[in-house]
Amino acid sequence: MRLSVWWFLLAFMLSVSSVAQQSQLNLMPLPTQVALGSGQLVIDPSFTLGISRHSDPRVERSLEIFLENLRRQTGIPALDLKLVDSAQAKLIVHADHANKPVQEVGEDESYSLQVTSANAQLNAATPLGVMRGLQTFLQLVQIAPQGFAVSAVTIHDQPRFPWRGLMIDVSRHFFPLDILKRNIDGMAALKLNVFHWHLSDNQGFRVESKEFPKLQEMGSDSFYYSQDQVRELIAYAAERGIRVVPEFDMPGHSTAWFAGYPDLASGPGPYQIERKWGVFDPAMDPTEERTYKFLDKFIGEMAALFPDKYFHIGGDEVNGKQWDANPKIQAFMRAHGLKNNQDLQAYFNERVLKIVSKHGKIMVGWDEILRPDLPKDIVVQSWRGQDSLAEIAKQGYRGLLSYGYYLDLMWPASRHYEIEPMSGAAANLSPDEAQRIMGGEACMWSEYASPENLDSRIWPRMAAIAERFWSAQNVTDVNSMYQRLAAASRWLDWLGLTHNSSYEPMLRRIAGSDAIGQLRILADLVEPVKDYTREETAQVEPTSLVPLNRLVDAVRPESSQAREFGKMVDAAIATDSNASVREQVRAKLIQWRDNEINLEPLEKKSFLLKEIIPLSQTLTHVCAAGLQAQDYINRGERAPAEWKTTTSAMLQDAQKPQAQLLLMIVPSVQKLVDAASAQTGR
Amino acid sequence: MRLSVWWFLLAFMLSVSSVAQQSQLNLMPLPTQVALGSGQLVIDPSFTLGISRHSDPRVERSLEIFLENLRRQTGIPALDLKLVDSAQAKLIVHADHANKPVQEVGEDESYSLQVTSANAQLNAATPLGVMRGLQTFLQLVQIAPQGFAVSAVTIHDQPRFPWRGLMIDVSRHFFPLDILKRNIDGMAALKLNVFHWHLSDNQGFRVESKEFPKLQEMGSDSFYYSQDQVRELIAYAAERGIRVVPEFDMPGHSTAWFAGYPDLASGPGPYQIERKWGVFDPAMDPTEERTYKFLDKFIGEMAALFPDKYFHIGGDEVNGKQWDANPKIQAFMRAHGLKNNQDLQAYFNERVLKIVSKHGKIMVGWDEILRPDLPKDIVVQSWRGQDSLAEIAKQGYRGLLSYGYYLDLMWPASRHYEIEPMSGAAANLSPDEAQRIMGGEACMWSEYASPENLDSRIWPRMAAIAERFWSAQNVTDVNSMYQRLAAASRWLDWLGLTHNSSYEPMLRRIAGSDAIGQLRILADLVEPVKDYTREETAQVEPTSLVPLNRLVDAVRPESSQAREFGKMVDAAIATDSNASVREQVRAKLIQWRDNEINLEPLEKKSFLLKEIIPLSQTLTHVCAAGLQAQDYINRGERAPAEWKTTTSAMLQDAQKPQAQLLLMIVPSVQKLVDAASAQTGR
Repeated sequence: MRLSVWWFLLAFMLSVSSVAQQSQLNLMPLPTQVALGSGQLVIDPSFTLGISRHSDPRVERSLEIFLENLRRQTGIPALDLKLVDSAQAKLIVHADHANKPVQEVGEDESYSLQVTSANAQLNAATPLGVMRGLQTFLQLVQIAPQGFAVSAVTIHDQPRFPWRGLMIDVSRHFFPLDILKRNIDGMAALKLNVFHWHLSDNQGFRVESKEFPKLQEMGSDSFYYSQDQVRELIAYAAERGIRVVPEFDMPGHSTAWFAGYPDLASGPGPYQIERKWGVFDPAMDPTEERTYKFLDKFIGEMAALFPDKYFHIGGDEVNGKQWDANPKIQAFMRAHGLKNNQDLQAYFNERVLKIVSKHGKIMVGWDEILRPDLPKDIVVQSWRGQDSLAEIAKQGYRGLLSYGYYLDLMWPASRHYEIEPMSGAAANLSPDEAQRIMGGEACMWSEYASPENLDSRIWPRMAAIAERFWSAQNVTDVNSMYQRLAAASRWLDWLGLTHNSSYEPMLRRIAGSDAIGQLRILADLVEPVKDYTREETAQVEPTSLVPLNRLVDAVRPESSQAREFGKMVDAAIATDSNASVREQVRAKLIQWRDNEINLEPLEKKSFLLKEIIPLSQTLTHVCAAGLQAQDYINRGERAPAEWKTTTSAMLQDAQKPQAQLLLMIVPSVQKLVDAASAQTGR
Repeated sequence: MRLSVWWFLLAFMLSVSSVAQQSQLNLMPLPTQVALGSGQLVIDPSFTLGISRHSDPRVERSLEIFLENLRRQTGIPALDLKLVDSAQAKLIVHADHANKPVQEVGEDESYSLQVTSANAQLNAATPLGVMRGLQTFLQLVQIAPQGFAVSAVTIHDQPRFPWRGLMIDVSRHFFPLDILKRNIDGMAALKLNVFHWHLSDNQGFRVESKEFPKLQEMGSDSFYYSQDQVRELIAYAAERGIRVVPEFDMPGHSTAWFAGYPDLASGPGPYQIERKWGVFDPAMDPTEERTYKFLDKFIGEMAALFPDKYFHIGGDEVNGKQWDANPKIQAFMRAHGLKNNQDLQAYFNERVLKIVSKHGKIMVGWDEILRPDLPKDIVVQSWRGQDSLAEIAKQGYRGLLSYGYYLDLMWPASRHYEIEPMSGAAANLSPDEAQRIMGGEACMWSEYASPENLDSRIWPRMAAIAERFWSAQNVTDVNSMYQRLAAASRWLDWLGLTHNSSYEPMLRRIAGSDAIGQLRILADLVEPVKDYTREETAQVEPTSLVPLNRLVDAVRPESSQAREFGKMVDAAIATDSNASVREQVRAKLIQWRDNEINLEPLEKKSFLLKEIIPLSQTLTHVCAAGLQAQDYINRGERAPAEWKTTTSAMLQDAQKPQAQLLLMIVPSVQKLVDAASAQTGR
């Protein structure tokens, strides 16, 4: 499907409609093919809908959802819910045939959308394609001098990968159902189609089991989803063309199970919910038949609750310590010729696989589950990378890439964006092997995410990954991506996502005041530390009981202000720079340098501001250095070598985390210092 | 109850703890009695709760709700849900006895709260008092150098009036359940206790009737609450100590009923849901027995659905035209000696009253229902004012004041705040008569409220009215009120109310851009036109189909920037003014004057900005005049009379609405002009 006729058309289309033209439309993910027409279709209260051939109740439901989104986006209250004859409708939708009752991987999601000043026509093979096309239509609605309007355009579009997912870890922190729903809305807006629900881990078991109620009763602190809520979320996702794949991590990452059922574990209990982060010793006992009896009943219950064909058993990060320490397990391994813990886990996996298959599901697991001799229909999700992914495909398994898509590592969108599933060893796969790469999933591990800041940890960066999964491989223009990402961030506001709206209230809490002007100036220039530095540099041991109310929890994962400043500096030190951009740089540096003094009264009031004082001082020093560099440049005078040395040393220090935050303008100021020192001089 | 011992204590307390001290705590509504201690109680993850004598499951539930609020407010995730022994708890709550199974008017809501650096003790007669006290505790939590903390304090508190309500009209615009829930949260935070649910009107019938399903099927455009949702909201409100009183407006304001049941009307059908605003002719036929049969069945159904003892039948604004035009009705009136339409409506009311009573409820209605000979247990809600209220009480009925509390009229909080129920004729009532004034209700009629801006039309101004209903009559300091209102606005953010967060997205929609800096400067200085001017000055006939996405819909009902500027100008023209405040005024005027130029590029892009261009120009002219006035003042030169005349004329024009918006700084600039013209001169 991915190699269909559109790929060949694409080359032709690029001459007709440049990427620049497409970008102007702010579509995200960028469609396969876009051709601009002339004129525009006005959206006003007289806007009507028609279904050209009535096929599936899902089409009508997706129109209702579309209208609700359109109402929120435009503020037009009474967009007609009633369907009219296609000849009169302003937007006519058509789906050739129905989708499967339960959405499957690889169902046709393609659509074409033609908008003229008279009307719009959305054609798709299936209701899923209609859903995707309606999201494109919503993105096309813009304010104009005449009213809200959609520019005339012809779009043909289809996804590159059939599996485009987002995983949310609800174990380390719990997120109420409405938060998941709005994230499902965000996923639908970006044409993602798999919600991977990481439902159990050491820190919490989050779903109601009627067979084994102590799972949630003793493993969740009462923070779990009832089975009715699970069904509600699945139905909600299904209406938006999104599959829900549950994950129950085993045999490791399972301490929360043992709180209620210690007999499942390989070491003596009792167990309590884990409050810390990391990899822990407890693991299920693969040598006891009662383990498989339990799992058979449990997986049977969950297989009935979750209609999706795929069932994720985790399988990652077993440290094996409980197995090593248990003589009975050691005896079992010797008796069965299992040489090491990997063999033991493979034995476990094979037993679990049989159970999962018996209940009609296809097993998914992380890299670690991969062992020769497993049946070829399992799916491996790779956190290890494209080489591992290639190996998976070569061995005949299907794979998903998650390496490079961990949102909790606080990377900039551009870094996720450049992670290409079909690169590295995966670039050299045969067509058949390449087919086995089904797509990827972004992962939101929730050690440092709370209901308050989850959305801002996911959005809008997730949209860049969504584009990687949907759009053609050669869609890689980072500037265009950032421009459209800013637009996407606005659409997501209309869906109730709080990635923007939670920012100022969190700053107000930190300041204990409405007067957050200065704090915000600083906050806009910093980012949380990257990768696992937060854990490594924590002053207090991080646990699920530690509040996530610090500045590091409030600031955006990516500072657009620092990025813009970087561009400004590049322009200012270019050989053809003009005075205006140098003035802009100067004004920014002065504003930021003088910010410290104003922060002080706040800092004396609030314990959450204390740790920021040194950072604020650093900002002052960094900006002062930048201004000195500019003085040298403006005078055409080469900066003394000694000044360069001391200043660069200071800047190197300034790059180090403070309060687990990074001051993102430092590299740009270093560029100014370098430029000042590289001048021919007088 | 209102005249209890606390009143006498109050006089003593004012010497101990000044209003200024109380204000520093930012409590709202202001408690009856506050005495500051020394030290503070730290709130951290080790915070624990205890119940000193276990009485009522509602106490435990209210602690759960309290903890959720505390978690949101502080960001501390795992505040212990488990109750500990009172001796160890940081907050010990105690309720003497249970409340009634269904909350009744006048149940004891008093509480006392004593906070020391060791712990806090909350004592109340009932769980209702516990709920009120927990809200006070939440308001006391502040950020401090040591962490979150509550200052040591002793509070005794109880409400002045037993009926403190907010009415929301869900007929003219419909609001989904989650929006009502967060408004219930806001009400609870401000110690309000009645949600008056205006469920039917000409523009929509909003509740599911199983007896008469065409009511919602044909009268709601599918926007109605299912009976399950109604029960859900009632339970939600009950847990927060809030009664839910339903209103079904009759015999007028009932066109939406007639869409499904035209036989109820006094004129020939068919009928459609009304889309316009105003008073309309259709009214129920009081002369047909089938009307009462219908109402008996319907009210019976609703009386079972809504457990509250009170049942509101509206009864307002019948214009009588259908009655006048119907010969059968005229004949009935003659036959029964009914002299006019008021008599006919009284006949209707008496019949309805019998039905309401038969189903075990007490009838509530607007002023118009008041007629001698009705039983004395009915309640009259007065939109007419304190004199009408006094008349109600004198005739032996119980009354509620809503005059002066219409939030949709866009008054400033201060104007609502000064509306005193016991003023005018009501000030001269005997103690017995005064007892019959049960309190009041703010009303949010929804002609110009959408799901997007409802919260900002209600909050934070509602908090000023809530204080009027709860706090002592002599709590009238407007400056203190505004200071605490700003704090209340922040707490309400934590409850998910969107009065603050919806502002910028709406401006971004209007601008079609993220670059809303200049638009926001203008938007911060304007307010929607007041009273019914919006209807009177509409260019397009306002209906339920007209989008509410203009600047008038986005801006706050009250401009705090203009209020602050007014204070600044007063200080600047005072005889003892200093140069610094004059500089501040000048800086503001320059910034605002120069705002027009920057707005222009946006204005060319968006149809929603077009109507604002003249307003933006006016801002420039007004500020230029203010700067001229300052120049005269700074030079100590008397402004020429001619300049004053032309400038004042310009300012008078500038006070007129543009785009249905008022530029709120004009009166302050007029003060500058007057000051410049009043100088002794050189």
